[in-house]
Amino acid sequence: MTDASPPRPFGRIALIGIGLIGSSLARFIRRDGLADHITVCSRTHATLDTARELGLADSITTDPRQAVEGAELVVLSTPLSAYAAIAEAMAPGLRPGCIVSDVGSVKQCVIRDVGPHMPDGVHLVPGHPIAGTEHSGPEAGFAELFQGRFCVLTPPPGADEAAVQRIVDLWQRAGMTVEVMDAGHHDKVLAITSHLPHLIAYTIVGTATDLEDHLKKEVVRYSAGGFRDFTRIAASDPTMWRDVFLNNRESVLEMLQRFSEDLTALQRAIRWGEGEKLFDLFTRTRDIRRGVIDANQA
Amino acid sequence: MTDASPPRPFGRIALIGIGLIGSSLARFIRRDGLADHITVCSRTHATLDTARELGLADSITTDPRQAVEGAELVVLSTPLSAYAAIAEAMAPGLRPGCIVSDVGSVKQCVIRDVGPHMPDGVHLVPGHPIAGTEHSGPEAGFAELFQGRFCVLTPPPGADEAAVQRIVDLWQRAGMTVEVMDAGHHDKVLAITSHLPHLIAYTIVGTATDLEDHLKKEVVRYSAGGFRDFTRIAASDPTMWRDVFLNNRESVLEMLQRFSEDLTALQRAIRWGEGEKLFDLFTRTRDIRRGVIDANQA
Repeated sequence: MTDASPPRPFGRIALIGIGLIGSSLARFIRRDGLADHITVCSRTHATLDTARELGLADSITTDPRQAVEGAELVVLSTPLSAYAAIAEAMAPGLRPGCIVSDVGSVKQCVIRDVGPHMPDGVHLVPGHPIAGTEHSGPEAGFAELFQGRFCVLTPPPGADEAAVQRIVDLWQRAGMTVEVMDAGHHDKVLAITSHLPHLIAYTIVGTATDLEDHLKKEVVRYSAGGFRDFTRIAASDPTMWRDVFLNNRESVLEMLQRFSEDLTALQRAIRWGEGEKLFDLFTRTRDIRRGVIDANQA
Repeated sequence: MTDASPPRPFGRIALIGIGLIGSSLARFIRRDGLADHITVCSRTHATLDTARELGLADSITTDPRQAVEGAELVVLSTPLSAYAAIAEAMAPGLRPGCIVSDVGSVKQCVIRDVGPHMPDGVHLVPGHPIAGTEHSGPEAGFAELFQGRFCVLTPPPGADEAAVQRIVDLWQRAGMTVEVMDAGHHDKVLAITSHLPHLIAYTIVGTATDLEDHLKKEVVRYSAGGFRDFTRIAASDPTMWRDVFLNNRESVLEMLQRFSEDLTALQRAIRWGEGEKLFDLFTRTRDIRRGVIDANQA
C-alpha cells in the first residue's frame, strides 16, 4: 500500500460463526476499517454464501484450522457447545501472538473448553458483548448493535495485558463500555440479569402454548397486557440458549431456586388475601426500575 | 347553543378516578368533543387540582354521589378495591338510563361488587381497555393510549343492548377494537396474558433486590440482557396490581400452578443436562411470537 493511512488495528481477523453477533461484529470492523482481511468460518455453506453476499467476508471456509491461518485475532461466535471441538480443530493453525476471543453469554466454560487447546504464545481473552435482539442469523446483524452497551472481558489469571487491551480497544470502538472481571462472577451476575429472565419467558410462553384451545387462540389477541414482552424474549435463538443453560447450570439453578421460593411466597399471599405483602413487594420493585433508568439503560 | 354542530354523544360524563387510564380517557373525550361536561371525582384534593390544571375537568368533587348527579355516563377508573364503596356511595345520585362502566383489569368482581348497588334503570356495562404504561397518575395519561388496542366489554346477561352499543362506540372512537365476552372468560384469558406476566416480573425483580450486595450493584448495570424488560413491567402501579391479584385469585392461582409445573420441568432438564427438552421448548415458543407479530401487536 502506498497511501498514508495509519495501520489497521488488526491484519487478518478470523470470525468463527457469523450469526447475529458475529455478523454485527463483521459489519462494524468493515465500517471502521479495523482489519486488512476478514475470514469467515461456518460449517454451513449457505451461511458462508450469505456472509459473502452481504460483503462481510474476504474469504470463507468451513475449516476452522484454515480460517485461523495467519490471523492476528480469532473470535468465536458460535453456540457454546461447539467451542471445544472448534478449539481443538483450529489449534494447529494458530500462530504465536494470536488473540483468541469470543462473544458467548457464559464465560467459565470458555476457559474450560477452549483454554486447554491453546498453544503456547496464543492469548485467550474471553469476552461477552451484552447486546442482542430476538433475531438470528447473518442477515439480522447491524454495526450499531453494540453502541452504548456493556462488554465484559474475563481473561484468565496471568493473561497478557497487551492482548487484553487490544480487545478492550476493539469493543470500545464499537461504542461499548468494557469491564474486566472474573469469569465466575460474570456467570453469577448474568444468571440473574439475563439467563433467568430468558428461562422464565420461555416457560410462560410455553405454558400459554399448552392452554386449552378456547383460551390459547385469545392469548395472542390480548398479548398487549404484558405477555407480549415475554414472547419477544422467548423468540431468541434456541440453540444458543440451550447451551447457555447447560453451561451455566450451577448459577442458573441457584438463582432459579431463589426465584421459586419468592414466587411461592407470593402465591401464598394471593391465596390468603394478604394485600399488604403484595403491595410492599410491588413498591420495592419500583426502586430497581428507577436505578435502571438512572443508569441510562432503558 | 345556537350553532349547527351535531349533538355530542354524551351530555355529562363523570369520571371516578383520574390516573393513567382515567386521564387518558378524559383527554380523548376532550379531544373529540364527546361530552358537554366532565366531572372528575377523586378522594385526593391534590389529584383533583392536577386534573383541573391539566384541563381535564369542568368540575371536581371528592363526593361520588355529587359527581354522578345528572351524568349520562359514569366510568370508574380507581383501583378495584374501591369499587364497592364507591358504588354504594354514588347509587342514590344515579338517574335512570345512566350507564355505569369501568376500566378495571378484572371483570367478574365488578359485577359482584358494583352490580348489587345499581338502581333500577341504570345500566352496568363493565369494560377493560387493554392498554397502559408503567407510569401512573393524571399527568401520565395521553389521548392516543388506546389507539390500535383491544377493549373487552363484559355486560351481565340481559344487559341493555343500546347501552352496550354506546360503550362500544365510545372505545371505537378511541381507536380500539371492541369485543364483548363473558366476564369469567375475560378473567381467565387475562390471567395468562397479563396478570401472571406481571406477577412473574414483580417476583424476579424482587429476587434481584434481595441479592447480596456484591451482585446487586451489578444487576442494574447489566440489565440489558433481558432483566430490563421485567423492571419496566414491575414498575406498574402497586395498588392497582395488588387489587388485580386479590380479585382474580382463582384464575391467577390456576395459571401460576401450571407455570410452576412447567418451570420445575425445565429446572430438572437443566440439572440433568437434557438439552433436547430445552431446545424443543425454545423452538415451540418462537411460533407464538410469530402469531403475535402477525396479529400486529408487536
